[in-house]
Amino acid sequence: MTATTTLVILGASGDLARGKLVPSLFNLYCKRRLPDGIQVVGLSRTPYSDDAYRDMSWQDVSAHPHLKARESDWRGFAANLHYVSGNVGGSGGLDALARRLAEFEAGSTGANRVFYLALAPQLYEPAVTAIETAGLHEGAGGYRRLVIEKPFGWDLDSARAINAALHRVFSEDEVFRIDHYLGKETVQNILVFRFANAIFEPIWNRNYVDSVQITVAEKVGVGDRSFYYDRSGVTRDMVQNHLLQLLAMVAMEPPSSADPETLRNKKVEVLKAIRRYDSREAIRNSAAGQYEGYVDGDGVQPDSNTATFIASRHFIDNWRWQGVPFYLRTGKAMARKVSEIVIQFRTAPHTMFTLPPGQWLQPNVLALCVQPDEGARLRFEVKTPDEEMAIQPVDMEFEYRAAFPDRMIPEAYERLLQDALEGDASLFIRNDQIEEAWRVVDPMIAGWEGADAPRVELYRRGSWGPQVSERLIASTGHRWLQVCGTHADIRASQLAAPGGRR
Amino acid sequence: MTATTTLVILGASGDLARGKLVPSLFNLYCKRRLPDGIQVVGLSRTPYSDDAYRDMSWQDVSAHPHLKARESDWRGFAANLHYVSGNVGGSGGLDALARRLAEFEAGSTGANRVFYLALAPQLYEPAVTAIETAGLHEGAGGYRRLVIEKPFGWDLDSARAINAALHRVFSEDEVFRIDHYLGKETVQNILVFRFANAIFEPIWNRNYVDSVQITVAEKVGVGDRSFYYDRSGVTRDMVQNHLLQLLAMVAMEPPSSADPETLRNKKVEVLKAIRRYDSREAIRNSAAGQYEGYVDGDGVQPDSNTATFIASRHFIDNWRWQGVPFYLRTGKAMARKVSEIVIQFRTAPHTMFTLPPGQWLQPNVLALCVQPDEGARLRFEVKTPDEEMAIQPVDMEFEYRAAFPDRMIPEAYERLLQDALEGDASLFIRNDQIEEAWRVVDPMIAGWEGADAPRVELYRRGSWGPQVSERLIASTGHRWLQVCGTHADIRASQLAAPGGRR
Repeated sequence: MTATTTLVILGASGDLARGKLVPSLFNLYCKRRLPDGIQVVGLSRTPYSDDAYRDMSWQDVSAHPHLKARESDWRGFAANLHYVSGNVGGSGGLDALARRLAEFEAGSTGANRVFYLALAPQLYEPAVTAIETAGLHEGAGGYRRLVIEKPFGWDLDSARAINAALHRVFSEDEVFRIDHYLGKETVQNILVFRFANAIFEPIWNRNYVDSVQITVAEKVGVGDRSFYYDRSGVTRDMVQNHLLQLLAMVAMEPPSSADPETLRNKKVEVLKAIRRYDSREAIRNSAAGQYEGYVDGDGVQPDSNTATFIASRHFIDNWRWQGVPFYLRTGKAMARKVSEIVIQFRTAPHTMFTLPPGQWLQPNVLALCVQPDEGARLRFEVKTPDEEMAIQPVDMEFEYRAAFPDRMIPEAYERLLQDALEGDASLFIRNDQIEEAWRVVDPMIAGWEGADAPRVELYRRGSWGPQVSERLIASTGHRWLQVCGTHADIRASQLAAPGGRR
Repeated sequence: MTATTTLVILGASGDLARGKLVPSLFNLYCKRRLPDGIQVVGLSRTPYSDDAYRDMSWQDVSAHPHLKARESDWRGFAANLHYVSGNVGGSGGLDALARRLAEFEAGSTGANRVFYLALAPQLYEPAVTAIETAGLHEGAGGYRRLVIEKPFGWDLDSARAINAALHRVFSEDEVFRIDHYLGKETVQNILVFRFANAIFEPIWNRNYVDSVQITVAEKVGVGDRSFYYDRSGVTRDMVQNHLLQLLAMVAMEPPSSADPETLRNKKVEVLKAIRRYDSREAIRNSAAGQYEGYVDGDGVQPDSNTATFIASRHFIDNWRWQGVPFYLRTGKAMARKVSEIVIQFRTAPHTMFTLPPGQWLQPNVLALCVQPDEGARLRFEVKTPDEEMAIQPVDMEFEYRAAFPDRMIPEAYERLLQDALEGDASLFIRNDQIEEAWRVVDPMIAGWEGADAPRVELYRRGSWGPQVSERLIASTGHRWLQVCGTHADIRASQLAAPGGRR
């Protein structure tokens, strides 16, 4: 007699469930990382037999680019994969699920249930209500967990309403909010980089850091999400979650332990310290763009002023970061797919070298490369060979894939599903993190969506965004840097000239 | 009418002149870096005609592995290459040279003369006397310079005697003492690395640095230098000059300018701050070895106790470095040819991560790779991919040759000859540097050459030296690291366990 663990995927016929969750679960199974005797139940409105669902899932798994799916493994996994039809919006919509769970749990010493809402956000509240109505949130022994995905609301008020709704049925420590960025190896590595190495922390502050840039650029446009996207925009879609999470990890104080609450307290602290703008200040400290052709998408208003690109400048009002600009930028239809964090250090306080006229020392730059070329780069000055005294920047490089050729960097969802099943909430977002993040972006949204909002500037597909983005960062003496995954001549994409100091 | 510049190479038929000096001068000529109208005069006892000397030199130049010698360039260079027979030991030995110089200088507005003593050290004093006797040290207008090579004496007293002899004829600012190590690009780059980058200096001190290792290992044995070597030994041959020069560049305070006197003052300061041992302390802080088969060399005493390997531990008694051990090691017939400086940092003061049992954080290591794989490496901790929380060290790498594929890293002598001709003494050793370096090594030599000196320990050719070397460094809690030019598994050649702290 043991405890039963059941993972229910609500929204089993959707892209997330089929493209990410089932393949990740299968991979965890192959690595023997799933709890013993776990049952996985897919649920959606469409009726399928267990076998039809298994066949469909096998096809999804075998088509997955990063999986070497073996049929023998699959048979073991599929034996515990089930399907139940249900409708979270209808009355008694989860009754069939309740009966199936009762079968699994009959005679077990405890019944653990994890509900993964792979659903459209407007179904979060109905789903939680349906779980409650069917009595699935209570039972003898075992834990209940609810896993949900961004977007966590529309603004601070709606986020609070959602949190309140979740908390009617689940306590905060039962809620696992996924920002899948946090499941990425290289995002987790930010903490290791900062706090397992002794040499970075001493210079990780306003005395040595000149500015920080966080770029999350996508090459694709909004694609078939255009209807949703036009009502959401880039700030809600990317800044409120991914970019502010990255910022928190870069800027946070050292936690005393990796205990989830300690870690998340430190993140909330730094989010709280981000300077609050009113909507006019938010406009002045940001630059919005829309790629050409965006309005041709299905469901997009022909005169849409929705931003598909945004750059913003933030300040963190604490001892460590006072006066250091944090520049964020993210957009669709940009030149490259790249996510990177660039720490630009101050230049040496004094130049002992006599440099040729027109040359000056360049600042050190540290880049943490999140994707797609995971790794790190340190830009530093060296003597140009065979010149009496010429100095130029070069990059010291580390590439994750080259260093670990035998280890596949896993899908973020693998780690997150495993953590949710193990109850480790470190990589999940706590309600106060959500709310603080909304407090930061609400004025930006208000500024750019208000009645007297400026027009967003059009930018060419495949560019680095609109011209206003360059002017925004230039106005505080900097330039956008793109360091990761490129071996272009460093001089060519040069840094800010001295004098352009904060 | 212009000034005449003549470079006289005394010892023109020797290995240094033929293998290094003439090829380097020719290369400078091809790069248009020689002074206009320079005359180069080779001098040795053997009589040659100018043409015979030119033919011999052309053969040397074309055989030079790093030169793409073109005959058309050669003709231009050779037109100003001359030969004079002379004997610095004989009376009137430089009379022919004096006549030749008078021809060159006839009617010129000033006569610059550079004397390069490519001679055995015991001929330095006779050569200077011969120059004086022939009246070549004085003349109307122009400068006189004397270039000499290590060894600069035998101990502090003999070094002082040599300096006194030189100073009878040349003032200190006319004397250019070559430690060819300082002409190497990557040695010059140590200063650029430290003082053109803002991020290293803040952690370049006892608060963050745990220990420093400097290794200069040679794969070859003493070869045909065995007679000389047996009377000299590794400490005079390598430590007194190369290793202490590297130490000075790593440990010096930031100079306010690259002005030669400022720079050399800073080097002398740090050499002066090296803790002085008596001969017993020197023995206790060093480990000497002799490779197997060394005594079979020509002219080696059969019971020779000459060290071909020495490792030593030093402390620098100043605010920056108090308590930080500096480990030096150098030897012949070792596993690899490699020169590197390894800065081992202290480990992070606190580990927020829960590591698997038996694992601990490894310290950061920065390696400056001097030769043969010029570059830099930074060893730092990253998350092991696809593990919940495992951390392991990896290297961020920079390779000079990969970064500058089109630029040949020049022969050290090129730079040094050019500097001597231009009068830039930055890379040359001032008399007080020599004397301070002897003060450091004299007790080591006294200890290992004294009547009650311990026997040096034999070591296998192709090893990393004797076992006592490992014990020496282990006694202060460290291990020898070899970081440059190797991609071996980092875990395998692991660092010291924690607890082994100073």
